[in-house]
Amino acid sequence: MNTNLEQILSSIEPVSRDLEPEITAHLNDLLHPPGSLGRLEENALRYCLIRETPQPKLEKKRIYTFAADHGVAEENISIAPKAVTQLMVMNMLGGGAGVNVLSRHTDVENQIVDIGIDHNFGELPGLIHEKVRMGTSNLRIEPAMRIEEAEEAILVGAKLAKQAAEEGIDLLGTGEMGIANTTPASALFAALLPADIETVTGRGTGINDEQIKRKKEIICEALDVNAEQLADPLSALAAVGGLEIAGICGLCLGAAEARIPVVVDGFISSAGAFVACLLKPEVKDYLFFSHKSAEAGHTVFLERIGAEPLLDLGLRLGEGTGAALAMGLIDASIKIYNEMATFSEAGIEL
Amino acid sequence: MNTNLEQILSSIEPVSRDLEPEITAHLNDLLHPPGSLGRLEENALRYCLIRETPQPKLEKKRIYTFAADHGVAEENISIAPKAVTQLMVMNMLGGGAGVNVLSRHTDVENQIVDIGIDHNFGELPGLIHEKVRMGTSNLRIEPAMRIEEAEEAILVGAKLAKQAAEEGIDLLGTGEMGIANTTPASALFAALLPADIETVTGRGTGINDEQIKRKKEIICEALDVNAEQLADPLSALAAVGGLEIAGICGLCLGAAEARIPVVVDGFISSAGAFVACLLKPEVKDYLFFSHKSAEAGHTVFLERIGAEPLLDLGLRLGEGTGAALAMGLIDASIKIYNEMATFSEAGIEL
Repeated sequence: MNTNLEQILSSIEPVSRDLEPEITAHLNDLLHPPGSLGRLEENALRYCLIRETPQPKLEKKRIYTFAADHGVAEENISIAPKAVTQLMVMNMLGGGAGVNVLSRHTDVENQIVDIGIDHNFGELPGLIHEKVRMGTSNLRIEPAMRIEEAEEAILVGAKLAKQAAEEGIDLLGTGEMGIANTTPASALFAALLPADIETVTGRGTGINDEQIKRKKEIICEALDVNAEQLADPLSALAAVGGLEIAGICGLCLGAAEARIPVVVDGFISSAGAFVACLLKPEVKDYLFFSHKSAEAGHTVFLERIGAEPLLDLGLRLGEGTGAALAMGLIDASIKIYNEMATFSEAGIEL
Repeated sequence: MNTNLEQILSSIEPVSRDLEPEITAHLNDLLHPPGSLGRLEENALRYCLIRETPQPKLEKKRIYTFAADHGVAEENISIAPKAVTQLMVMNMLGGGAGVNVLSRHTDVENQIVDIGIDHNFGELPGLIHEKVRMGTSNLRIEPAMRIEEAEEAILVGAKLAKQAAEEGIDLLGTGEMGIANTTPASALFAALLPADIETVTGRGTGINDEQIKRKKEIICEALDVNAEQLADPLSALAAVGGLEIAGICGLCLGAAEARIPVVVDGFISSAGAFVACLLKPEVKDYLFFSHKSAEAGHTVFLERIGAEPLLDLGLRLGEGTGAALAMGLIDASIKIYNEMATFSEAGIEL
């Protein structure tokens, strides 16, 4: 394994529960029946523990949307052609995508990362240029990428998390754009959970019966062709994953290293976060799962790892849209912690 | 029935679906896979239909928190004494309650209504003075109030909705405060759904095993003592309901009349909204159920009327806290509708 990656993994520590009594005491002192704000209180506790403070602040929130192309897009198992990846990146830079709208709504900064789009954007301002290669190869036929490329993409994500920490970001979110990317995500879940292909493969953006049948066959072939590489998470990521998925994996690792909580978007982001957790189980302590995607396999994944997402709104757009909404809820949770009156102030005992 | 109330009921119309094709066409034109923003799109459609426009605006949001006392509080089936109602009202006026924090977060204005607190606040600025009586009677022994008083409280809520419409409010939310008010809410659900007392009675703010046993007995006695009045929703509301529940019922009716959508908070607010729907079934078209409360009976109610709340965060505080959060989601839905780029603008066909 790449030594920089090894070093990141070795410096990630589990979240300490030392401050839990103090944080819980404050939550119970809020002028309300103890526990009656449910998951908002749970969020506040987790956030404080990750940030290692009983006096949390949450000022700056940022989503990185990683965009990349996929060789498997040539199999016609998406509703849109591959060129839509670059088109949607332009739309995101222009502020007109779903993730932009929802991020403005919840006061989250958007950053768009070209980590492997099959298009040369030139100097395009606003875009973070971290292209590892011009999209992946077709995983049905050969490994999507080499292990070194997957490592490089992971390190891009980790570097961005580190930069965010240096820039005072308090909360990170994941997002992605990449035509055909539910296919590698499903392949990773099938290989690494592991799970039946049938249970973790869905309709993505809305493919028809014939296409989903073909999609499942392709994943089956991909797992066959790449069988020898599926035993460990890193080589599986390279063989049947994607560059944006690797970037998200790296963002989760880098954030855990920097003790920044990460709000994981939907199905594809979950695949990246899952690989990060397999590489270093302690990462899970730093993750908030934003929502239950309408994509069929997401529920299987969430149940298997015992995660309870904050929202269930039938979203299946990706980009970071679910993360943006959930980051608003975490913001609300910290405001509850910081702004509610307390029994002690009021001189009351319940 | 009071003639003013009759007039409100007769002027509520079902939400027309005439604009649905035009609104749906715009949603499908947003630069995303059709339907991939799930319930956000559903919210936008419903909001536009209620407001009768394919060009919605959502600028001003307001929650009315109705506060009242309950004679049944003397039975010791709450964790807090009755005086906490007035104390929490003071806290809300000071901006330190949960509903204040979450309303600031989602840019919602709070208004607190004394519709029947057993305390004389005098001139207290900021409080809306609409006291119908000094709390209800103990419903275990006698009717909580007279039918005329319930009607008066309903008309308070309806009047406030009308005022809100005149002041340009686009979206209303409900909230309540009243020590012991899960008891009348459960009694109303038991009588009007109807449902077994066992299934719709929960621990409220956190009572113990002995208290919940007693609470169920009290509701059983209340339904016996008031048996003759439970056949129609209005007299049931008077017999085993509460003044804040009646106010919420009225707010829903008045909002439906004024074509303003109403975001219903949790368990107790649902009881008020339910009575409104029984008085005029078309009211349901105007309601958004904000969240599934952790209070046991709420799920029974929501399933029975076929409502799918927007959030499920284990909240059981009331005040309007769940409504405040859900109003943020409806805001997000309208922004999606108004701010996302479209296929037609981009000159693309998917």
